[in-house]
Amino acid sequence: MKITIFSENFKGAKRDKVLEAYPEGMENCLKSFISEKHDVTVILHSDEDDGSALTEEVLENTDVLVWWGHCYHEEVSDEVADRVVSFVNRGMSMLALHSSHKSKPLMRLLGTTADLSWREIGEHERLWFINPNHPIAEGIEVSNILIPHEEMYGEPFAIPDPDELLLLGWFRGGEVMRSGCLWRRAQGKLFFLQPGHETNPTYKIPEMQRLILNIIDYIKPTAPLRKPFRSPNIPEPQEKF
Amino acid sequence: MKITIFSENFKGAKRDKVLEAYPEGMENCLKSFISEKHDVTVILHSDEDDGSALTEEVLENTDVLVWWGHCYHEEVSDEVADRVVSFVNRGMSMLALHSSHKSKPLMRLLGTTADLSWREIGEHERLWFINPNHPIAEGIEVSNILIPHEEMYGEPFAIPDPDELLLLGWFRGGEVMRSGCLWRRAQGKLFFLQPGHETNPTYKIPEMQRLILNIIDYIKPTAPLRKPFRSPNIPEPQEKF
Amino acid sequence: MKITIFSENFKGAKRDKVLEAYPEGMENCLKSFISEKHDVTVILHSDEDDGSALTEEVLENTDVLVWWGHCYHEEVSDEVADRVVSFVNRGMSMLALHSSHKSKPLMRLLGTTADLSWREIGEHERLWFINPNHPIAEGIEVSNILIPHEEMYGEPFAIPDPDELLLLGWFRGGEVMRSGCLWRRAQGKLFFLQPGHETNPTYKIPEMQRLILNIIDYIKPTAPLRKPFRSPNIPEPQEKF
Amino acid sequence: MKITIFSENFKGAKRDKVLEAYPEGMENCLKSFISEKHDVTVILHSDEDDGSALTEEVLENTDVLVWWGHCYHEEVSDEVADRVVSFVNRGMSMLALHSSHKSKPLMRLLGTTADLSWREIGEHERLWFINPNHPIAEGIEVSNILIPHEEMYGEPFAIPDPDELLLLGWFRGGEVMRSGCLWRRAQGKLFFLQPGHETNPTYKIPEMQRLILNIIDYIKPTAPLRKPFRSPNIPEPQEKF
Repeated sequence: MKITIFSENFKGAKRDKVLEAYPEGMENCLKSFISEKHDVTVILHSDEDDGSALTEEVLENTDVLVWWGHCYHEEVSDEVADRVVSFVNRGMSMLALHSSHKSKPLMRLLGTTADLSWREIGEHERLWFINPNHPIAEGIEVSNILIPHEEMYGEPFAIPDPDELLLLGWFRGGEVMRSGCLWRRAQGKLFFLQPGHETNPTYKIPEMQRLILNIIDYIKPTAPLRKPFRSPNIPEPQEKF
Repeated sequence: MKITIFSENFKGAKRDKVLEAYPEGMENCLKSFISEKHDVTVILHSDEDDGSALTEEVLENTDVLVWWGHCYHEEVSDEVADRVVSFVNRGMSMLALHSSHKSKPLMRLLGTTADLSWREIGEHERLWFINPNHPIAEGIEVSNILIPHEEMYGEPFAIPDPDELLLLGWFRGGEVMRSGCLWRRAQGKLFFLQPGHETNPTYKIPEMQRLILNIIDYIKPTAPLRKPFRSPNIPEPQEKF
Repeated sequence: MKITIFSENFKGAKRDKVLEAYPEGMENCLKSFISEKHDVTVILHSDEDDGSALTEEVLENTDVLVWWGHCYHEEVSDEVADRVVSFVNRGMSMLALHSSHKSKPLMRLLGTTADLSWREIGEHERLWFINPNHPIAEGIEVSNILIPHEEMYGEPFAIPDPDELLLLGWFRGGEVMRSGCLWRRAQGKLFFLQPGHETNPTYKIPEMQRLILNIIDYIKPTAPLRKPFRSPNIPEPQEKF
Repeated sequence: MKITIFSENFKGAKRDKVLEAYPEGMENCLKSFISEKHDVTVILHSDEDDGSALTEEVLENTDVLVWWGHCYHEEVSDEVADRVVSFVNRGMSMLALHSSHKSKPLMRLLGTTADLSWREIGEHERLWFINPNHPIAEGIEVSNILIPHEEMYGEPFAIPDPDELLLLGWFRGGEVMRSGCLWRRAQGKLFFLQPGHETNPTYKIPEMQRLILNIIDYIKPTAPLRKPFRSPNIPEPQEKF
């Protein structure tokens, strides 16, 4: 499969903090384990551009778009956001990681603000499988993934009911979260996965890597990208019985 | 309850055709039977305005927004569309009638194009209740509402799975349709009701009038309009046990 | 509304422990606050009977059946279990409390074993509202209900996806739970509410009492009890257009 | 995959009628096209047995159980019905065809009576795909499958909301039907497919054969059969952070 990772190009003090957790860069950590199974292209994005590197051509060659954004959500142009929404409708899959809950494409695909509660003290999280026999849990030998330090994201989470709820997050401080949610949108699928604060090396945990690979497999497109939708005028059928 | 009807101000030849079906104007037919139970305000909209009569103040005084649009979807400004989306998220209910499936607010609340198949030959439709004991069927003594002449709207209908599917449409020409769909979006509810082509007097059918009143009752807000959403930073709880 | 509480008649040492938490009896605690708003009948059940006090006549006069069972699930006869299933299908509502997840009627309405993880050390639980503006949260001023001591019930919970998931439980020891679930079954509704271990005075917490009253209001029947279902043979319609 | 077909052994006049539609026997028609891709075992069932040929051993060697029943639903013992329910919970998939909506395993997995409306005049049906790009539509070049003569099965259909609704049926006489429904039950999946009256050669239609093969692929187990469920007592985790 062809995977495109759209990730933020961290800057300044934030960049230094991220490099402590991910010396190779967070996007390269993601690329590293995903590229063991798939073709991966990374597109970095900052306040210096509007995301227009996500061209029609790139998206036509993307099976699963992995999105990690936070500081520069508003820098992404409406045109690029709508392009992603359109490709998901046409059959591309999208995996929105962590703070991407507030990315323009996710909010436009869901029709809600996707607000949530948060706290950044690096408390530990347990990420529970609702169904340990589900394909996204394959090869993971624990009932819950223990994340030593993570930003708390908690309910209420302003989303539509997921078409499949697959993971629940437990936080040391007392909160819970719908942490793994799948929505279908026309021909495409959107998955939100909550863990992945940029200054915690969450994506280095082997079970998290396996989980992300499993999710990519689970949401992969099952048909070629469809042409843009239209509303056809249908003649009356002529068969008589 | 306070109901706001946002409807198109038909023009020219189209207007003459609509007046054959609804001599009093379609919006006044809707107003007439809804106002027997609720306060109703009508806002007409055409290509001469961008829908900005739907001000913050109007929406703050609206429990259920009834929307009928067709020719002038694109005239509605993005700002007005986003305002409606925001109010639905905050707890206002919306009933989208017939061709409003392609209205900006509906597409933005669903995250899909809401395309469908169609045919305009005035064939007859049967509108079936999936559950004849559901509140939206209250007082309606038939298992399906017979609409003598209606525009065909058929599957595939590019929508997310409804949170509740309540009505199915059957068309003489051979098509079927998810004709009554409810979605929850944060605090608010969105209902799509398929029948209501502007040149067929569908909203004059007594069972259709009762159905629309029942839907308005079923989706009515159950809590006051919430303030705009935000993502709160939550301190760690201090209780110890 | 007419509420029937079907509860276990605790015995021996267990009875003594329950009386420490509920000197008046757990069923009388439930009766006391529910009867402030509704007519309540209590039916006690033990290993000395098969639950047959839940007659057809009793169920015909029940709007919401509140069920609390644990030790004597298997003593309830198949006939009584099937009778409850049939009445829920006909439009009676059922609220299954705590260990009633393994009651025969609940398992038969869900088609699953409803197994879960558990631990009985009296740890504290936080019961979170997914949507604090939902009718079941009305009048409750907290985002989560703090239960000082409760039996842990955790995922994986072998249930079908709820038609509405409304509450999530957080446990001190590290587990999470889908703690408030609504399912529709033909004309009736089934709600599962997780807290309520018999030796913890959970139902004395004011917010829990308000929650239970809110749930009863939310799931109340909206149409009279329907006759038992049958599959009608339907003649072809004769209208011609 | 290993497919077990459990089908009725028609008798007397009914048998003669079935042989007109299926000279080789309906179960052999099903076997013939399914066995092009999978290992198929057929078990016939009549009023002379209680279905006990569906042993534990047979089900342990079944990936997808295809069930066609009508006259002898009540002859199947409760023990066999509960065995099938248990295996579906443990991860076996089940495809219930046509009149199997009233089979004991289906009703027990759904918790409803699965009643519906019906009419047997051999009218024609159109079986619509809600989503023509879904895997169950793969390789089928039409938006709807035209079935020249079929028994009408129509709404209201007393089932829980499907976890995925994939097909809608349109009948010449005026009815509609949720004709392709998927439910998840613990580890397993249940699919109901409406067409297949025994005296109409519906399963000889090439698109129907492809559809059934596609459904079998779509619902196939994704993990090995799980051990029977139990509710584990979980110790408190010992990690400290």
